[in-house]
Amino acid sequence: MSPELIDRFAAIVGPANALRDPADQERYLVEWRGLWHGETPVVLRPGSTAEVARILELAHETGTRIVPQGGNTGLVGGQVPAGDEVLVSLGRMKRIRSVDPAGDTIIVDAGATLSEVQQAAEDVDRLFPLSLASEGSCQIGGNLATNAGGTAVLAYGTMRDLVLGLEVVLADGRIWNGLRTLRKDNTGYDLRHLFVGSEGTLGIVTGAALKLFPKPRSRVTAMAATPSPADALRLFSVLRGTAGGTLTTFEILPRIGLDFVLRHAAGTRDPFGAPHDWYLLIEVSSGVEEATARDALEADLAGAFEEGLLLDAVVARSGNQASAFWRLREMLSEVQSHEGGSIKHDVSVPVAKVPEFLARAGEAVIELLPEARLVPFGHLGDGNIHFNVSQPPGMDKARFLSMWDEMNERVHGVAAALGGSISAEHGIGQLKRRLLPRVKDPVEYELMLAIKRTLDPQGLLNPGKVLELKE
Amino acid sequence: MSPELIDRFAAIVGPANALRDPADQERYLVEWRGLWHGETPVVLRPGSTAEVARILELAHETGTRIVPQGGNTGLVGGQVPAGDEVLVSLGRMKRIRSVDPAGDTIIVDAGATLSEVQQAAEDVDRLFPLSLASEGSCQIGGNLATNAGGTAVLAYGTMRDLVLGLEVVLADGRIWNGLRTLRKDNTGYDLRHLFVGSEGTLGIVTGAALKLFPKPRSRVTAMAATPSPADALRLFSVLRGTAGGTLTTFEILPRIGLDFVLRHAAGTRDPFGAPHDWYLLIEVSSGVEEATARDALEADLAGAFEEGLLLDAVVARSGNQASAFWRLREMLSEVQSHEGGSIKHDVSVPVAKVPEFLARAGEAVIELLPEARLVPFGHLGDGNIHFNVSQPPGMDKARFLSMWDEMNERVHGVAAALGGSISAEHGIGQLKRRLLPRVKDPVEYELMLAIKRTLDPQGLLNPGKVLELKE
Repeated sequence: MSPELIDRFAAIVGPANALRDPADQERYLVEWRGLWHGETPVVLRPGSTAEVARILELAHETGTRIVPQGGNTGLVGGQVPAGDEVLVSLGRMKRIRSVDPAGDTIIVDAGATLSEVQQAAEDVDRLFPLSLASEGSCQIGGNLATNAGGTAVLAYGTMRDLVLGLEVVLADGRIWNGLRTLRKDNTGYDLRHLFVGSEGTLGIVTGAALKLFPKPRSRVTAMAATPSPADALRLFSVLRGTAGGTLTTFEILPRIGLDFVLRHAAGTRDPFGAPHDWYLLIEVSSGVEEATARDALEADLAGAFEEGLLLDAVVARSGNQASAFWRLREMLSEVQSHEGGSIKHDVSVPVAKVPEFLARAGEAVIELLPEARLVPFGHLGDGNIHFNVSQPPGMDKARFLSMWDEMNERVHGVAAALGGSISAEHGIGQLKRRLLPRVKDPVEYELMLAIKRTLDPQGLLNPGKVLELKE
Repeated sequence: MSPELIDRFAAIVGPANALRDPADQERYLVEWRGLWHGETPVVLRPGSTAEVARILELAHETGTRIVPQGGNTGLVGGQVPAGDEVLVSLGRMKRIRSVDPAGDTIIVDAGATLSEVQQAAEDVDRLFPLSLASEGSCQIGGNLATNAGGTAVLAYGTMRDLVLGLEVVLADGRIWNGLRTLRKDNTGYDLRHLFVGSEGTLGIVTGAALKLFPKPRSRVTAMAATPSPADALRLFSVLRGTAGGTLTTFEILPRIGLDFVLRHAAGTRDPFGAPHDWYLLIEVSSGVEEATARDALEADLAGAFEEGLLLDAVVARSGNQASAFWRLREMLSEVQSHEGGSIKHDVSVPVAKVPEFLARAGEAVIELLPEARLVPFGHLGDGNIHFNVSQPPGMDKARFLSMWDEMNERVHGVAAALGGSISAEHGIGQLKRRLLPRVKDPVEYELMLAIKRTLDPQGLLNPGKVLELKE
């Protein structure tokens, strides 16, 4: 890219917000797990929707490729430029534009972090429910572009379910102002959902109108031990019936996962006296008094125990105890790195198929590598399992990781056979771009290409992500 | 259309399912309120997705225009052919393809009626929550095409929120099989939401994978009298906090609406001894015991009474009493016809703006016609008001109805000024097609046109509906 063209882009945002020095660019180019390292002629940090629009106008005029970036926390390389793309970081656009507690809505800039939006809701005694490990740094624009999930999906849905309206800059620089805060609006095609989950390939989200919720008056958290995923599923069905939408968490983890946490995370302790094969983290959040909610959950768990669905259970008696239970689940991703290489799968299947998926995917992996350690965990209630596989102790890490594609192939094959998805919540990015045409219905893939050509005919927005475009 | 071409279409579905006789066609062409009367050379009644695909292939090849139709219950003329379009009725495709009670999903043909799908859910002790006045005849395909709303939106969302996957025949006859039953799936663009609410202009939905829910163990229904919509809104906020997602109904109706019902609907009676300005129908549906749920609602209503938000309230003590309360709300649309002409608006505004909308829209109408009788009612919790206006007693009905456009203009103007929508749940169809470009963001309208050209380049699907295409 010519220095003159870079100067023209830089002039839009001002020299202080056009980073050309590799040292200044570094934090935008390093992917946090070290899987990718990006390159770009310039990082632009626009301060307004109008500046984003002028950047895309100039890109459109000059055929310049653009990679939009939020908090740079994505797990599939969607935010990483390959070399000749201008990187547009939304991080300076972090205004809370308006909050309407009576109507339970909030309008924010795309560059606000998830934590900042949660806090803005909290400030008016409301809840913005999306919750992720990276919430302190991930941004709402990125959450929208990737249809982020996390630990509150069961009751509140993914980001897609939380958005009422969008402001988007299109590939040619036009601004679509769709910042509505309506609960119902049947006036034509729903464009909002086209941009949510499109990973920056159809437009750059610059603002969003989001749903807020009443803050739960009580949260009751329990750890339980269950004989099997099938029993866990039966318990899930029971709790869906009694707690309904107040069942906000239903996570599963295997004994080996708990072992990893207990071994590597300071201050953790086993919630039960004896070891069990499978554990559940359960939370009910509602508008009723805590004592009432706790009694109800305890009664349900006691009933499940009677029926043999549970082997043990403990309902947290304090916020500290609840936090300790949550920590067992939340540390699981992190501590795996202490056990050597880990091959990851972010898979979903129909909820009722989770037990079968766990069994068959486990067999498929063990057939490939008998000593592999299976650490599947995650959002059982959403049918979304992070099917992680840790290397056998003592095996060469690089040799283990060289099996990544082959193992993926097997696990994805089982998911596909059960009507599942190869990316439940992390997206496609560049990591799974080549896999996508092989798992998608061909007509659906053609439709996606047609939509891409319509909204970004020059293929300038986040090239090399999601789709394989014919060059 | 040539008899030879009609024969070719008829051959696809068989002669018994190709209706050419006007008498046979009548039920597909008469709009139930008599606003439109359609014309078509032939009504086709395909029996399978493959037949729908062959119809659209032939239409694509011959440039034949197509109007898809479900239960013919739409309110905006979206299902009515203008003369040269082949009408494709989905009503023979009514299979329940599969039900998964453990995973809370169901897959159905598009021609199944809403009641049939509700029943199939009931048969496995589950709830399909969408509920509309026309549920006995409206079809799932039509519900999807119009993103149907109804009386359960507050807790369960509109049809858009209830769909997991779709099967759609595209304008050229290709079949998109997107019948997934996954709760989470981030593998590319969400095409599902493009077809939901597109009113048959982008493709013909032939099958759908839908969400099911646990059947509530208890439903508690109350009628309440409130001093004003602003007080009603405050009560709504209180109940959202305590009942959360178990608050399944929060409907408002004015005294005059209750008067109309009491006057014209047999067997109805005033729930209170004294008249009040505004009434609320409130329902809480949950997994807790009925006595517990009733106590909780009664406590909330007593608190609201203390604070002056309510003037009176009664919680139903039996199913019959609950049905009687529901009847007061449900009869409201129907009985209006006994009071002469009625000019209708299906408007939404941000929830917190409902009181202001009611006041300003009322003023705008009264300014135009001081003796007009305002009968605004509906889904306060969704911000969706059916702002109906009944003619002054004794006025000439035709003269009153001649003010339709002018009154619409005023009411829609108030809604637009408050960030609202001119069609909250009924859609655009032909009724509001010419209004749409005037209220939509121009960029959004251009995007809609671009999507239409991409998916239906010949403009064959439901022509003259939703969008104004350049011919």
